[in-house]
Amino acid sequence: MTQHDLAGFRTATDLRAAIRAGAFTGHTAGLAQGRLQCNIAILPQAYALDFLRFCLRNPKPCPIVGVAETGDPMLRTLGPDIDIRTDLPRYNLYRTGRFSESVTDICAYWSEDMVTVALGCSFTFERALMAAGLPMRHVEQDVTVPMYRTNLRLQPGGLFSGEMVVSMRPLSGGDIPRAVEISARYPLAHGAPVHVGDPAAIGIGSLDQPDWGDAVALRPGEVPVFWACGVTSQNALLEAGIPLVITHAPGHMLISDIDEHAELPIWAD
Amino acid sequence: MTQHDLAGFRTATDLRAAIRAGAFTGHTAGLAQGRLQCNIAILPQAYALDFLRFCLRNPKPCPIVGVAETGDPMLRTLGPDIDIRTDLPRYNLYRTGRFSESVTDICAYWSEDMVTVALGCSFTFERALMAAGLPMRHVEQDVTVPMYRTNLRLQPGGLFSGEMVVSMRPLSGGDIPRAVEISARYPLAHGAPVHVGDPAAIGIGSLDQPDWGDAVALRPGEVPVFWACGVTSQNALLEAGIPLVITHAPGHMLISDIDEHAELPIWAD
Repeated sequence: MTQHDLAGFRTATDLRAAIRAGAFTGHTAGLAQGRLQCNIAILPQAYALDFLRFCLRNPKPCPIVGVAETGDPMLRTLGPDIDIRTDLPRYNLYRTGRFSESVTDICAYWSEDMVTVALGCSFTFERALMAAGLPMRHVEQDVTVPMYRTNLRLQPGGLFSGEMVVSMRPLSGGDIPRAVEISARYPLAHGAPVHVGDPAAIGIGSLDQPDWGDAVALRPGEVPVFWACGVTSQNALLEAGIPLVITHAPGHMLISDIDEHAELPIWAD
Repeated sequence: MTQHDLAGFRTATDLRAAIRAGAFTGHTAGLAQGRLQCNIAILPQAYALDFLRFCLRNPKPCPIVGVAETGDPMLRTLGPDIDIRTDLPRYNLYRTGRFSESVTDICAYWSEDMVTVALGCSFTFERALMAAGLPMRHVEQDVTVPMYRTNLRLQPGGLFSGEMVVSMRPLSGGDIPRAVEISARYPLAHGAPVHVGDPAAIGIGSLDQPDWGDAVALRPGEVPVFWACGVTSQNALLEAGIPLVITHAPGHMLISDIDEHAELPIWAD
């Protein structure tokens, strides 16, 4: 099943059923429009309190939208039936800070001391920007948004620290105010940009060489606009070198039942 | 030293110095205007992860604005020099769910396994409402805002659960839309109201008999407006019966260095 085949799936529930059944393992951009998609980190309880501290102190890159009970695979506050072991299209496992394997379900890896943390994701504000007629160059070019390490220091939290990772979208000067206003409405999805203009000012050497994703073209009159990026938290988890962390594979997010416009990321029946 | 004497203290730092020196043990309403004041809960690390889960799932009554490292008495993200052992005017200690004692510093009770959690407080939106010319009846009557248990079920988190506690302010029908809009700008201070009108609809028997604080008069044409209240978290901590929790005494809040209008509750030098 391809992403194209899934366009007919209207509900997050239908989509997750296809993913759970193993029928879809692709990226989730543009799927179940209007539902909050989430970055996922699953880690041993021993590190969970520190990780929550780190995220709470760096809410722009790491906006917490859900935390499961220890050992409970269900993300009960994000929907009535979300099993984190099976409901992502693809997962990456990292052991002591290094990539270990990529899998499409994690039942074999689940243990009673695991804690799942869900963070908001840029798909939410991108959709709102495109709905307002603002162009997203990486979508036009059908590539992954370019992401860069910066020199923006994060507030440390226990074991976790580092610098912010940002994503970049080129916009014309006249579109930037609207892009700021619109994205600011989604604090659970990184909110307003963290920097507009000169990449060197935040420690980025060359826009042509992103640390993750693909470079995109800047056209005459366009200015690079930088948003805090969810890769920040993955990076901090890896650099801390904890024994095991399981994340979504890039772009392969959790599709929750939460409305993107919900004030609070809490599902209620 | 009375609250009146402190009116000349301009900065949060001066105020905390007076409090730390034991020169002021009164309530903090109206002090250091423009600085974020906080509800405080200090609890053993063994319960901290569950308490953060509970707060994250109930962000209207329990908006987290800071979490200290385990055993660290400094609240480093809320200001450059906040020592939680001495910088509140008054503390309450509760043991296994029962009030134990009220003290003006907790140095003798501090231990290496303690975690401090700071939550936003209603003083922030009240100040904004009064600045917009909206009357606060409990301020006019110089009493404590009336607070009520409701039947609004909270999302459980580990050991912690229960119903929401709300505070009530009477407002004329014409003032209510503005009160909603203004308070909604402060999601870190309970945000918009949770209910307007009929107390019985949220399980409140009689407005004349608040569960905490003092009853206030409703004038002709006024409607009761209910906001989520920080007592919710204290209540959940007590009902869980954990061995020890230390909180601010009611109205005796932490005065942080964070600007009330800050988008993020993170102090940066």
